[in-house]
Amino acid sequence: MNELSPLPYKGTRDYYPEDKQLQNYIFEIWRKVCESYGYQEYGAPLLEPLDVYLAKSGQELASDQTYSFTDKGGRIVAIRPEMTPSVSRLVAARRQEMPYPARLYSIANFMRYERPQKGREREFWQLNVDIFGVDSVLADAEIITISDQIMKSFGAKSDDYIIRVNNRNLINFMMAQYLGLDSNRAHAMIKLLDRKDKIGRDEFLDQAIQMFDENQTENMKKLEKILDAKTMADLPEEIRNNSSVKEIQALFTLLERADVKTVVFDSTLMRGLDYYTGTVFEVYDSSPENNRSLFGGGRYDGLVGLFGAESLSAVGVAPGATVLEQFLDIHNLLPKFESKTDAYVCVVGAYQKGANYLAKALRESGLNIEVDISDRKLDKQIKTADKKKIPYVIIVGEEEIAKSEYVIKNLETGAELRTSIDDLILKLKK
Amino acid sequence: MNELSPLPYKGTRDYYPEDKQLQNYIFEIWRKVCESYGYQEYGAPLLEPLDVYLAKSGQELASDQTYSFTDKGGRIVAIRPEMTPSVSRLVAARRQEMPYPARLYSIANFMRYERPQKGREREFWQLNVDIFGVDSVLADAEIITISDQIMKSFGAKSDDYIIRVNNRNLINFMMAQYLGLDSNRAHAMIKLLDRKDKIGRDEFLDQAIQMFDENQTENMKKLEKILDAKTMADLPEEIRNNSSVKEIQALFTLLERADVKTVVFDSTLMRGLDYYTGTVFEVYDSSPENNRSLFGGGRYDGLVGLFGAESLSAVGVAPGATVLEQFLDIHNLLPKFESKTDAYVCVVGAYQKGANYLAKALRESGLNIEVDISDRKLDKQIKTADKKKIPYVIIVGEEEIAKSEYVIKNLETGAELRTSIDDLILKLKK
Repeated sequence: MNELSPLPYKGTRDYYPEDKQLQNYIFEIWRKVCESYGYQEYGAPLLEPLDVYLAKSGQELASDQTYSFTDKGGRIVAIRPEMTPSVSRLVAARRQEMPYPARLYSIANFMRYERPQKGREREFWQLNVDIFGVDSVLADAEIITISDQIMKSFGAKSDDYIIRVNNRNLINFMMAQYLGLDSNRAHAMIKLLDRKDKIGRDEFLDQAIQMFDENQTENMKKLEKILDAKTMADLPEEIRNNSSVKEIQALFTLLERADVKTVVFDSTLMRGLDYYTGTVFEVYDSSPENNRSLFGGGRYDGLVGLFGAESLSAVGVAPGATVLEQFLDIHNLLPKFESKTDAYVCVVGAYQKGANYLAKALRESGLNIEVDISDRKLDKQIKTADKKKIPYVIIVGEEEIAKSEYVIKNLETGAELRTSIDDLILKLKK
Repeated sequence: MNELSPLPYKGTRDYYPEDKQLQNYIFEIWRKVCESYGYQEYGAPLLEPLDVYLAKSGQELASDQTYSFTDKGGRIVAIRPEMTPSVSRLVAARRQEMPYPARLYSIANFMRYERPQKGREREFWQLNVDIFGVDSVLADAEIITISDQIMKSFGAKSDDYIIRVNNRNLINFMMAQYLGLDSNRAHAMIKLLDRKDKIGRDEFLDQAIQMFDENQTENMKKLEKILDAKTMADLPEEIRNNSSVKEIQALFTLLERADVKTVVFDSTLMRGLDYYTGTVFEVYDSSPENNRSLFGGGRYDGLVGLFGAESLSAVGVAPGATVLEQFLDIHNLLPKFESKTDAYVCVVGAYQKGANYLAKALRESGLNIEVDISDRKLDKQIKTADKKKIPYVIIVGEEEIAKSEYVIKNLETGAELRTSIDDLILKLKK
């Protein structure tokens, strides 16, 4: 038989213990922040019918990037590329019984068929935080506040990141009324604006001009006014008079009260997904070397209704773990690896039985104890403990068993001590 | 557009908050037991090349039950149906650098295309606990001890479950030397023995007799001796003299020392997977109404070597969450649902701003606080808190804001109290 490759599938990662501990650190912060706002954890299946994504996620995500296939029963299914349709389905299935506002979160794995690059993987882990059943902008403010709190909880300072906010109704108004684009072209312009940072301003303008059949010069001037507005006050008056601007202002007032300092209006922020219906926002890294979108979200009032339930308003956000990991790295916020194992029991001579008993007693007092069962020389056993970054080794041999006293050694300082089992427990519990 | 179904994909489950909390309880016990033995958590990709399973997992798992498909790049991949090949691959990739014994665990989702039934789902969550680099039976004993400790940690009593143990070398000896079966028939007999509880004794015997071309009566008598042996002592002498019996005895001695009381030898225990090379074991529910295998494991010394690395001995076990959930249910060991939210802040009148400030202050002292933002009547807000099983509501209205005193109400007892924010914190922290 051919040898199998030891490498992971393209665009995916193996998480060795140190990688996994870092991922768990990110998960723990997510969990803590969500639960502090009363959000409850749920879980959803890995597979959904492909139709769920074709409906509202947009062509790129649902077709080009989705891992879809036909199962043995003839169903066309997809490995979830995102959670929003799934959580909407869960809520739709219990539309009547659920208590509202329903506040839900999950941490799950997803797949997208993309060209792997830094911070973007084919399998990725994402938090989803969603609130259902609140029409008012209070819900939008809460989701953005939680996003901000997540960044703060990782130790980010207010100049490390910035939250950009826009509104789909305002975008639609700008496309249709202000720029006079029909619905197909408006859609194309939104997608183009969404890609403007990737393709650069010149390429963007070259493509944008082709969207206008007439009055190209005038329309391009108008478009540049949108592009260049740094604040809401910079926008042309006819845009500023749109009702959604009031909503954005109300949102900013709530965010200020909630101590969210790092938020700005951005008239060019689009969010690629088709299902957004109001507020959209993205959290950006503001460091020059990683000036990119970290994660985002928005309001999507139409999704629950797709699943045969009465429609229901919804706002959500979905940070990914890998992008945050990169952010923590760049901003020097990565936690140090710390072994969860309190001590490593080494065995000298034929005293495995005694070592196992000692380990058992220590575990029963609540300690995490690894015991060597390799029958190797002591130095090799200590090297194993050291490689695993376990802080202490305990040595068990003839003398130790005879006296019921054990040598405990601090691997960082080298300090050694011979002591009783009760003292060992006290020492390790500190 | 057609309406989308609100139901989950066939054979999978939606985990609403109460379901997810139960699953998390199971995960937490797994985690705690593994870490108490010094095992470190890792993660592996959802997809692997299908070849990885075709190599050693056996026809049924790798072909009939696997979700496999061709990705957009032409690779034939599978959604992992089990973790053992993946963890072996991870270890193979760092064969030289890893510290041994390598003790690893993971909690992950898997998929198998099976007919859904009670306790068996197409997507399922499983713990995998594996130790690499120990040839001796000490490793087998540790993995079985951990399996026993998991059951104990869920509150199971020693008569709630039983651990059955056998050995692949002994099985191979019984098939080839004792029953005289060639390797194809030995393989078929192993698979048949593995299914004997499902098909029943009569059907088993009918199919078994066809494996013997000659001396059918004599061979069937021999086979029945294996079937009917209750202990090692009941086995025919020529089997008892096989060297693997000594290994089983050594294993039982170690298990006795480790306080594993619920373990028996079972000469008919097979385990379906092809990669086992020594000890195999399964934990059974011993209640009459659910007399089934809960989970199992064994030694598989050949897998790491398949990935181009020097071969390495390995022992592992893999309990699934759903089967354990059923076990806990039957044995009355399910934990009660408890909200993680400490209090629900209700708003009377136009005092959302004050309610949000109060919630913020309570969160900053470490409490989990949900705040109503629905602008509904008080009784509806309280009903929401009650439905979510949150123990307390705090009421914020005109008087409360004016006096900076809030009404806190225990939803179970109905007791109410008007108090300051500092007292609220003290009360809720208890």
